[in-house]
Amino acid sequence: MSTIVLYSINRTAQTTVRQCLIPYSKGASRVDSHLSVFLKTSVRRLTSLPRVKWVPNATGVRFMSLGTAGRTAPGRTRRGAVLVAGAAATVAGFVASATHFQRAEMASVIPKTEEEDTEIAEKCKTFMSPPCTDVKVLQQRKEEMCTRMEMLIMETQAEFCRALEEVDGGKFKVDRWERKEGGGGISCVLQDGRVFEKAGVNVSVVFGNLTEEAAKQMRSRGKVLKGKDGKLPFCAMGVSSVIHPTNPHIPTVHFNYRYFEIEEGDGTKQWWFGGGTDLTPTYVNKEDGAHFHNSLKEACDKHHPQYYPDFKKWCDRYFYIPHRGETRGIGGIFFDDLDSPSQEEAFSFVKSCAHTVVPCYLPIVQKHLNDPFSPEEKDWQQVRRGRYVEFNLVYDRGVKFGLATPGSRIESILMSLPLTAKWEYMHEPPKGTLEADMLEVLQNPKEWV
Amino acid sequence: MSTIVLYSINRTAQTTVRQCLIPYSKGASRVDSHLSVFLKTSVRRLTSLPRVKWVPNATGVRFMSLGTAGRTAPGRTRRGAVLVAGAAATVAGFVASATHFQRAEMASVIPKTEEEDTEIAEKCKTFMSPPCTDVKVLQQRKEEMCTRMEMLIMETQAEFCRALEEVDGGKFKVDRWERKEGGGGISCVLQDGRVFEKAGVNVSVVFGNLTEEAAKQMRSRGKVLKGKDGKLPFCAMGVSSVIHPTNPHIPTVHFNYRYFEIEEGDGTKQWWFGGGTDLTPTYVNKEDGAHFHNSLKEACDKHHPQYYPDFKKWCDRYFYIPHRGETRGIGGIFFDDLDSPSQEEAFSFVKSCAHTVVPCYLPIVQKHLNDPFSPEEKDWQQVRRGRYVEFNLVYDRGVKFGLATPGSRIESILMSLPLTAKWEYMHEPPKGTLEADMLEVLQNPKEWV
Repeated sequence: MSTIVLYSINRTAQTTVRQCLIPYSKGASRVDSHLSVFLKTSVRRLTSLPRVKWVPNATGVRFMSLGTAGRTAPGRTRRGAVLVAGAAATVAGFVASATHFQRAEMASVIPKTEEEDTEIAEKCKTFMSPPCTDVKVLQQRKEEMCTRMEMLIMETQAEFCRALEEVDGGKFKVDRWERKEGGGGISCVLQDGRVFEKAGVNVSVVFGNLTEEAAKQMRSRGKVLKGKDGKLPFCAMGVSSVIHPTNPHIPTVHFNYRYFEIEEGDGTKQWWFGGGTDLTPTYVNKEDGAHFHNSLKEACDKHHPQYYPDFKKWCDRYFYIPHRGETRGIGGIFFDDLDSPSQEEAFSFVKSCAHTVVPCYLPIVQKHLNDPFSPEEKDWQQVRRGRYVEFNLVYDRGVKFGLATPGSRIESILMSLPLTAKWEYMHEPPKGTLEADMLEVLQNPKEWV
Repeated sequence: MSTIVLYSINRTAQTTVRQCLIPYSKGASRVDSHLSVFLKTSVRRLTSLPRVKWVPNATGVRFMSLGTAGRTAPGRTRRGAVLVAGAAATVAGFVASATHFQRAEMASVIPKTEEEDTEIAEKCKTFMSPPCTDVKVLQQRKEEMCTRMEMLIMETQAEFCRALEEVDGGKFKVDRWERKEGGGGISCVLQDGRVFEKAGVNVSVVFGNLTEEAAKQMRSRGKVLKGKDGKLPFCAMGVSSVIHPTNPHIPTVHFNYRYFEIEEGDGTKQWWFGGGTDLTPTYVNKEDGAHFHNSLKEACDKHHPQYYPDFKKWCDRYFYIPHRGETRGIGGIFFDDLDSPSQEEAFSFVKSCAHTVVPCYLPIVQKHLNDPFSPEEKDWQQVRRGRYVEFNLVYDRGVKFGLATPGSRIESILMSLPLTAKWEYMHEPPKGTLEADMLEVLQNPKEWV
């Protein structure tokens, strides 16, 4: 069977090498293993099924990128063509054209087998909903980062939702939505459950032109973005989730893993990954904190020894509420603009993080499932939720970007807000109370590992 | 008794004329009446006592300013001296120096009587707390706009708090606070009352240097602000209040009246008034809406026939939640950057508005005091309060300015948030319900007069 493969401009030289070197019938894990020989490195095996137990893999090591990390110049522009080096000599060459993301892409014909088509389709059946992008399109461009990331976020959504359903007994409401400006998403929400007051797990895959407001926000963090006729086509996708349990002894968790591409006026393309997982307890529990942070550290350490310490600090800085002089919770990891050492390695790291979501959080939920709590403890939880709302509405970059992007699905963006929250004037827990202990930790972030 | 009068740089030619022409023993209302002759106009009498019933006054007409509205050049700078015209020939001349607000002001000696000193002191006794500025300082510069505005906001706070206490039966907690960067305030809060879930009435008088963030916000709305060595000394004062009743049939009210001065690098000074009063009901009540808007229209009409229609529209525009496609409530009036036709007239208008707060709201509270309500109605109120929080944290200019100003008193800024709020995923009232009627009005602002 011959298939039209849609080349989008976001391909690095690396993905092109893979596409051309490796027989399609071997599947994703084989692709990676093949690549690892070519690149003199090893890559962690793709966990392709939702609900597969996450097993730490200690063999992951860093590898060098042959591609242009973070910034990919167009094939035939005045900035010069991207030429594929080394073993890529077998590559006939390709044109990463300066086209937009809205499907106006270059086409090329690649032979494919029935088997590999079925593989993506089979995986998709295990998701909470068919993916945002048509399954056939995903099959056609299965080697591209856009496809691989979309498969990962769909898989993460399904894995996490099913783990939560199992513990709660309730079922997620699944909403598919489309964004008229381009793209769409799948929102899964479980509200008023036995364990979860409000649990939201959202996937979105959107594209279009950046609004001036959004471009301003990006430039303010150092990105140089030169559009064409004021336009900056972008493609963004991610999975994000906030879980607010009813019991104040079960902490709130949040995670978000995302991939971003912007095409500049001259066809140059910028891409980066971002994400993180963080915990917001109502009361301090050292054991929970240690389990949570250790799980994240393990995932990070497989990729770089500096990732956990750096991204832990970044998390404390990011989830800081300046006007309160306190962090939102006890942190975790947070990173953004990750465009090195290579697209492949950055993706591999994001994958490890995504697969750590269930094992870092679910054991904590299980542990406190039947903890008794008083109305005063519930009240303190509500006050803390007020602070959660303050952070999300005033400072969170994702929320700000979403609210400033026309056609965003507001219910999905604000899904992160708790079901209920409270603002008591001058609420100050007396010294020596458990509430004051929590505040102390939020005012002076500590090490948990 | 001779007194040191502190001339701050924020004086217009007009207030200087008054200070020199009018015998001090006549008091504030006499000052105004005197001025009215001099200016060939009439000004509404100052209501100097808290809890004085607000009586509409139909004699107010517009008058011409002799001062420089909105922008006042310094006395002796290269921009030229401000010379006082007409009857002001008796004025010996003054130096409005390019000093800062932090008390580094020019001093001059003016004879005063015991009586007028007592008058300000007596008024202050009726306030919820002694004013932010020392009573002696207020007495010494009683003719200045800063003093007159501070007296008005203190008076408004007292009048409103006492009216609410009378209907609730509870007592306001009064907190005086200081801002280490300059100034302070008085926050009055009544929480968990019989009628009011959370009622906050705040006065603040702050000065210092604008932060870069705050200056950016102001420039973004067209103000040209040229600092000296990057510094822009400012003085801001205002009274603001949000009242969240327990009963969903009693609407939430918000008002805010403020005065702002900024000194530019060359000593030029900009001043303006801002404010408004608006209503946020949980259910539509045409009679309440008409009473509220008519009260505001009456206050506006005394000053300019265009004020109500213009400021009503401005209010609908300002309290709009773009990401929801709805207004926060049913509006009222809103204005900002009011620096014409003269400082005197602008102040007179603000005074009328401030005196309308009690009569536009309290009758509505009284009317619904004993309305029964269901848990479903309470729930809808909580959802609407979630929207209130969204507006305040994401869009409100005052909140944003406060959060961006170091040393702001956060509890006073966020006093406007309701005690409790709710975010239900995909909350959509069915067609034909009272809740859907409310939404319809919020999506399509209507005329109430």
